[in-house]
Amino acid sequence: MTRNFRALIDSQWAMSKFLCVGLDPDFDKLPTQLKGLGVREGLLAFNRGIIDATAGIAGSYKPNTAFYEAHGAEGWDVLKETIRYINEKAPLAPVIADAKRGDIGNTNNGYVSALFGDLNADAVTVHPYLGSEALKPFLDQKDKGVFVLCRTSNAGGGELQDLDVSGAPLYSHIARIVADSWNVNGNCGLVIGATYPEELASVRSITPSIPLLIPGIGAQGGDLVATVRAARGHMLISSSRSIMYASSGEDFAEAASRSAQELHNAIINAAVQ
Amino acid sequence: MTRNFRALIDSQWAMSKFLCVGLDPDFDKLPTQLKGLGVREGLLAFNRGIIDATAGIAGSYKPNTAFYEAHGAEGWDVLKETIRYINEKAPLAPVIADAKRGDIGNTNNGYVSALFGDLNADAVTVHPYLGSEALKPFLDQKDKGVFVLCRTSNAGGGELQDLDVSGAPLYSHIARIVADSWNVNGNCGLVIGATYPEELASVRSITPSIPLLIPGIGAQGGDLVATVRAARGHMLISSSRSIMYASSGEDFAEAASRSAQELHNAIINAAVQ
Repeated sequence: MTRNFRALIDSQWAMSKFLCVGLDPDFDKLPTQLKGLGVREGLLAFNRGIIDATAGIAGSYKPNTAFYEAHGAEGWDVLKETIRYINEKAPLAPVIADAKRGDIGNTNNGYVSALFGDLNADAVTVHPYLGSEALKPFLDQKDKGVFVLCRTSNAGGGELQDLDVSGAPLYSHIARIVADSWNVNGNCGLVIGATYPEELASVRSITPSIPLLIPGIGAQGGDLVATVRAARGHMLISSSRSIMYASSGEDFAEAASRSAQELHNAIINAAVQ
Repeated sequence: MTRNFRALIDSQWAMSKFLCVGLDPDFDKLPTQLKGLGVREGLLAFNRGIIDATAGIAGSYKPNTAFYEAHGAEGWDVLKETIRYINEKAPLAPVIADAKRGDIGNTNNGYVSALFGDLNADAVTVHPYLGSEALKPFLDQKDKGVFVLCRTSNAGGGELQDLDVSGAPLYSHIARIVADSWNVNGNCGLVIGATYPEELASVRSITPSIPLLIPGIGAQGGDLVATVRAARGHMLISSSRSIMYASSGEDFAEAASRSAQELHNAIINAAVQ
């Protein structure tokens, strides 16, 4: 049976699994004994440790391509093997390639081949700026999720995203057109940072059930309770650094497991309050 | 001496070299005898042929990362070797990695390592949507060019880029803030499609000397004369398919050379009219 992103994430939500574990390995931050293995084997051992430690808790995984591309072709191979390992250890957890891509249509075919073909990801993050006509190669992938950047978690995200467009901020305009016209295959989602819970609530009021990918919990300081209440289900609450680097020592995997379990529990508590 | 993007392109412009050769190889379109070499060697032989044929004419080169990533780690290696080969055969021609990247600041460091470190590109294209605070790792690279997407060449580019922001289209707002505040290191440029010469002219009136990277000539149908007149120098006129696939046969390199020379001549003629 073909893997379908929306079916996978719906099943995870039905089991109250909202946590999305970010896999953004930084070689300099690896435990000393893993650094000794070199870039390829060190990053892989680290990722496998995090995946083994969180496979029972994570609803989804989100490797960010930048952390792999930083190591060139070797990094690309690490990313491919990481996704293969997730599929083996957590086959029901969809993998979102956080690649933030977006080119003209003809060229996006290359990224579709790279991310969904070569890497076998279940979903991708994309920039909205070139419009839906350009994004068609992504949007046409009915079995893949396409998360459009809407209101990002960074401090300066508002510089363009809050610009006034006919009386409403640009990000809410994007939420509306994605929900109303880009989502013809029911495979779209939106990326909204947990650092902006009010903006998150306003997007949720525009589109009550579109999946929201929500980074910014943990190291970035987003408010979990406000976020969960605003998102009202259909959410992927993503944390990377607070799980991956819960300990800098040899017990990194056990610490990641505890940190992920605590965050999972906190999400459930916030949801039922 | 450190390579500096702006110094390199200024020297090329001083020699009336405005043509930017796009290197977007599609394995399916390679001449039959090159396909027989397999992906890695076939793509490399093709790119080397195009580079040898255009090294005396091209002011710059622009490989688009999507065409390489489509082949995974092997494609990444082809891209790296392609840039090394350009540096060897055309050392004065800067290489723009057309990667259209853009993540939060912490993460963009990974792309900076990938594109400027591992691949050794001289410039990059980026999405503006996350704002200048997020793009700081790129903008801080004083010797590298940072081309911000402004008005893209695709048919649907206007869906968001033409939205009215306080009485002017979003793309002109972006042109203004890039020129007025993002360009503190003098390393910014803007991407504007040749398919929209009126929008190009309006951007040029906002910022008279910022480098404009202008795709859309050739296969995309942009108007060369209108483009060159509107851009008024400080321009990288980019063409990919009309040069790379000028012939589908064994004479692909000779045909590319003729096509590049014709386009170079047409740019000069349009500029002096």
